Parts: sequence; structure tokens; C-alpha cells
Amino acid sequence: MSWNKVAVVGAGLIKMGELFDQSYEQMAAGAFDAAVASVDKGFEPTQVEAAFVATQRGTLWGQEGIGGNTVPVAIGLNGIPCTRIENACPSGSDAVRVGAMAVASGVHDVVLVIGVEKMRDKSTEEGLLSRAAAGHPIFTRGETAPVLFAPFATRHMHEFGTTREMLAAVAVKNHHNGVLDPYAHFRKEITIEDVLASPPVCHPLHLLDCCPQTDGAAAVLLVSAERAAEFTDKPVFVAGFGVATDHPYLHEKESFTEIKATRLAARRAYDMAGIGPDQIDSAEVHDCFTITEILDIEDLGFVAKGEGGRATLDGETALDGRLPVNTSGGLLAKGHPIGATGVAQITECWWQLRGEAGDRQVDMRNGFALQHNAGGRGSGVSVVNILTNRN
Amino acid sequence: MSWNKVAVVGAGLIKMGELFDQSYEQMAAGAFDAAVASVDKGFEPTQVEAAFVATQRGTLWGQEGIGGNTVPVAIGLNGIPCTRIENACPSGSDAVRVGAMAVASGVHDVVLVIGVEKMRDKSTEEGLLSRAAAGHPIFTRGETAPVLFAPFATRHMHEFGTTREMLAAVAVKNHHNGVLDPYAHFRKEITIEDVLASPPVCHPLHLLDCCPQTDGAAAVLLVSAERAAEFTDKPVFVAGFGVATDHPYLHEKESFTEIKATRLAARRAYDMAGIGPDQIDSAEVHDCFTITEILDIEDLGFVAKGEGGRATLDGETALDGRLPVNTSGGLLAKGHPIGATGVAQITECWWQLRGEAGDRQVDMRNGFALQHNAGGRGSGVSVVNILTNRN
Repeated sequence: MSWNKVAVVGAGLIKMGELFDQSYEQMAAGAFDAAVASVDKGFEPTQVEAAFVATQRGTLWGQEGIGGNTVPVAIGLNGIPCTRIENACPSGSDAVRVGAMAVASGVHDVVLVIGVEKMRDKSTEEGLLSRAAAGHPIFTRGETAPVLFAPFATRHMHEFGTTREMLAAVAVKNHHNGVLDPYAHFRKEITIEDVLASPPVCHPLHLLDCCPQTDGAAAVLLVSAERAAEFTDKPVFVAGFGVATDHPYLHEKESFTEIKATRLAARRAYDMAGIGPDQIDSAEVHDCFTITEILDIEDLGFVAKGEGGRATLDGETALDGRLPVNTSGGLLAKGHPIGATGVAQITECWWQLRGEAGDRQVDMRNGFALQHNAGGRGSGVSVVNILTNRN
Repeated sequence: MSWNKVAVVGAGLIKMGELFDQSYEQMAAGAFDAAVASVDKGFEPTQVEAAFVATQRGTLWGQEGIGGNTVPVAIGLNGIPCTRIENACPSGSDAVRVGAMAVASGVHDVVLVIGVEKMRDKSTEEGLLSRAAAGHPIFTRGETAPVLFAPFATRHMHEFGTTREMLAAVAVKNHHNGVLDPYAHFRKEITIEDVLASPPVCHPLHLLDCCPQTDGAAAVLLVSAERAAEFTDKPVFVAGFGVATDHPYLHEKESFTEIKATRLAARRAYDMAGIGPDQIDSAEVHDCFTITEILDIEDLGFVAKGEGGRATLDGETALDGRLPVNTSGGLLAKGHPIGATGVAQITECWWQLRGEAGDRQVDMRNGFALQHNAGGRGSGVSVVNILTNRN
């Protein structure tokens, strides 16, 4: 039996990209406006009782320490409670979970979750990812994000015969889906040959195995299940969620063929939703690198361990496959504006569950969509949210 | 009628100070151990179901972006859900609120809230406060924390006849209380003359009008009210809370004689707790500067607007006064390790409500204690929590 105490009644995002022409606050406002406009029966901004802002805001004006504080004013809601949620790459998905708990607590009936991130206004050396990956000076010289994920790829290749072509198939699929998503950063078909021939970053990951750095914002409106009908006749419910942590440093990992936190977070989410992975119709998962999606679909229970590469190459996760994954284009094509990523994934799940995903629409026969992020120096924390259109 | 869905069954902190000899993780573990040890009927660390970590972690190893991620491992609980809550100076108090909502939601029965901050390992120029105050480059050159608060002092002096002696009386009182608090950073009596003669920082604030930069950590254990009796026969309940935001920049403020967000947050907290300010027996409030406490006790409704300075000089907020304020020594004497501050204040309220505050114990005749932080470039966000020993 699903949790279903909280409904998503609105969701939206801005076109992802290199948004040098928009401020952080303008991006947040754009996402908020999109979410408000999406509410079937109308929504007054002043109905928002509290907000949670997912953001890392790394080195942007130095305001890491007051990350969410400028958002209420920017969206015309000065005065509302507003709390910043930060949990590395899963910040956005965790903010949806925290917002859902705020509603379920009975304290607030209507909660806004905004994810927003400026990734491109600073140089790579000064920027957010560089600082997040810097880590403890004793342990981590040179551990950029590709360096943190490449050992998972080499070990997966060694143990299971995963090939660079299988990795590339993830990118080809997600870029294809991105062509169909008007909000995606990149909207251009690529081929396996393109991925193989792209410049090497950290063996075996080449440029097209890596997600871009993207500016973006997304927002969702959460209300108590009892009040959902005031806003829509097609509510989507939060069926369950799970979070798990793991050792943050590579040298402490028990395994390089799985992300342990994802397996644990998924188990918690499935238990809360009262379902198993076989009931998921579509999934937005964390494909910061091609190898990550292969690990994800294994660790989330969609395919057996070691089968992720083969399954992807065989089209099982394509739009017309057995279980479509990253119908939005994923981080690889839609982009990965850290705090916004999870909220944007939730938006895609919401569209799929409402039958509003346009050319990307897949068959939601069971009525469940799954959203997943992993992060924290690669694999230190994972969050899984499960949404449903069944009550 | 108070909310009272969540009980505080354990609380503790480490001795505040310049803790160069302890790592961030060691400080967090010390606070966790203190909270666990404080539970009357015993507590197994593995009973923690989820954690919220309040921290700003500014420029410490560059890990602003993955702030809470190393705490579960440090306290022996690798795997648990752990989320970083950041809301400027009220980060700790907001984490207690979010943790309480997580319990009230029914998702978790036992939640840990840890506040932890390293303030001294970096130089002032590189450090957390410098970065938080840096703000937008167009608006804010030179707006250090004293500069953000000094205009409130000069305006209060102008409008209400508040004097430097009245400001100094706040510091004298809080340093006196700090002498009685074994966890305080500074434990030394000072006089009004000492404050007046201390070096000027930004008129009219002199050195002893300002809180120090302090390392520290504090932790509380929250459980559902129904399960409180498993852990203690003297539970303390979360009676209510409120958060409010305001324009973050000085030039946007409507007033320099009040912190508007505090007034709004207090009203929300009082409404939720079903009480008024006259029922508060003791309060821990945000005294980052002496003027701040004067504004606080007015904005929280303890004294009329403009009377805060006089009331303090008259001893109304002393340990033996009408309404004792900052019995722990406050930020001025106990210290202000940003993420830890609110959690440490909650700990003092918990001790007062349980009659365990030793030489600092005051008469808790009504059974209510209030905890308050303001922050976000000075006055951009306020959080108020109200605790009670009445069910």
C-alpha cells in the first residue's frame, strides 16, 4: 500500500542550458511561474505556505551560506518560511522528500519545492563541482567527478564484460530522448561511433559519456492528499521515498560494481510504496556518466547485476523498451543543474503519470514512476522517490 | 493548545571554543555522544532512523556542496538518511523544526539533529562569515556582520534613547551567565566599563558588543510523542515553531528598529503553540551583537518596542529577572558556531525545562521556553521554536 499522503499538483521547469542572460533569482522565478501555470484548476502564488530550496550555489557571490534566502523575494513571496536543502547531487530529490514530510506532518498544506543552480557563471576551476570534489586535502588530489566514476566503469567492464559500446548506448538513448524534450540542454542525435570517437576524459569515459554543466531551475507544488481535488482532478501522489548514505571517499568503498547507497535507498522507497521494481513503468535516474545509469538500473532492481550494459544496448530502457529510463534526456542530454536536477526529474515523472509527456510518453500501465539521484563525491548519498497516479 | 507531536528525549553539546585540536567529524561525534548519554532510560545509537545536519561548512575543504555527507560515518551510522539543512544563522533551529516535521509526518519515529561548525580553521578573510556577508558584488562592498547590525543600533538609539550602557548591559548579563555554563566559550565576568572601553568595531558596536567566532557542535534526539515514554519520564515537547523571511539586503529594509522576520516568525510560533509571550519562562535568543538581543526581546513581544535597552539595564532579563534571557551565556559568551548555535540553544531550553540547568536554573512556572535565531545578511530570516514540559 502506497504512502500517498501528499500530492504533486503542479510542476514545471525552465529550458535548461547556459543561461548567462538569467540571474539565479530569475531562473527560480521562471520555474515557479511554470509550476503555478501547470495547476489544472488554478493556483494563487500566495497559497504557498512554506518553501524548500534545493541548491548548492557554489561560490556564486560567496553565498553558499545563505543559499535559499533570496528566493522568496524573487518569486513575490517575501515572508514565507524558506529552508535550503542540500544533499549533494540528490539535493533536489531530497528537497521533494523533505517538502512531502512537511505536508504530511500537518504543519503545512501547500509547500513549494524549488531547485535552482547556476553552474556556468564561474570558471570550472572556481565552480561548484570543483569545490565539491576537492574534498579533504590529504586524500583527494585530482579526484574530479570523472575520476570518481571511471573506476566503477573499468571494474564493471572487468567483471561483467561491459563494453565501451554498451556505455555509449546510454548516451545515444538519452540524447535521442533529449531531442524530444523541449527543456533539454542538448537536442541532437548522436551515434555510438560519436561517443567512441569523442575526446577521452578519464578512461574509459569520453566526453559524450559525461553530462554537461548546465544552468537550470525546476519547481513542484505539493499539497496534502485531502486537498488535492481543489487543484486538480489528475493528482499524482508521493507513493514512497528512501535516502541512504555511504562512505564518501573512494578508498572506503566496499565495491566498484554497485552504488551501495542506491540499493539501500531503493529498498526503503519500495518498502514505503509497497511495490517492487517490476511495477515501475518509467524511471528518471542519475546518469551523470554513462556508467552511472548502468549501475543505477542494476542497483534499482530493474535488471540483474552485470546486465545493465547489455540491457541498454538491447534497447530494454529505450522509449519503446521494457522499462523506459530517462525519457527526459537525463542528465546527459537535459543537463545536470545540481539542485534543480531532482526536481526536474520529478516533473518528468509527473508528466508521464499524467499522460502529458508528448512524443516521449510511455505506457504507464502500473501507474508508478521512479526518480533517483546519487552523489556526494560520486556515491556517498542516494535518494529515490516513487510517484503514482493511483490512489 | 500546544502542538506537542514530537518530544526531545536527549540533548547535548561539546565545550565551545577554538577547537583546532578536533576535526569537524570529531566535533559532531562528541555532540552525538553527549545527546545519547543524556537519555534517561538509555538510547542505542542504531535507534536513529534519520538525521538532519545543520551546517554552513564554509570553505572548509571546499565541501560546502556536500555538507552533511561525512557525519553518518563519523557517528557510526553509515547508511542512515542524512540531509543538510542550511538557513544562515538559524540553520540549527530550522533543522530542529524540519526534524520535528519528519517525525510528525509519521515517516520516522526517531530523528537526530546535529549542528556543527568549524569557524576558526580558516582565516577571517577566507572564512565562512566573510563569504556569507560578501553578497552581490554590486550592492555590498564592506558589509561585514557588524556593519549590517550597527545601523539598527544607531537608529534604535536615535528613536528610543537607547544608550551604549544599555547595549553593554546585554553583554555584561550574558557573560555573567556564561561563567555559570561549563560549555561556554568565554567564562569571565565583564563590566559595563569593560564593554565601553573595548576597541570600536563599527560605531556604536565595540568588541565586547560582538559575539566571538567559535567552533562547536550540539545534538538533539527527537521522537514521536507516543514513544517518548520509552526514553524518558521527563519529556520535553516541541510546542510550536515559526519561520519567516525578509529582504536580504540592508537597502531594502523597511525599518531599522525591528527585525521584521522575527516578529512574523514569533507570531507563527505562538499561534502554533497556542500561547503568548507572557507564558514564556526563559528564552535563548540571537545575540550576535548586543543590539540584536535588544531588538529580539522587543520583536518577540517580551517588552514594548523601544524598551529593550532599559529593560536589560534594569535587570528584567537577568537570571533572577522577570524573564531570563540567554541563561546559557548566549552567542556573546557561549559562542556562535553557526549551524550548532540553534541546536545548542535548544539544549539549554531542554535543561531549563527539566530543571537541570544547575546554577543557571530559573523558575519555569508556566513550563515554556523559547529559542530564537535571526540571520541571513543580518535580518533576512528568523526562526522561533517553543518547547514545553507540559503535555
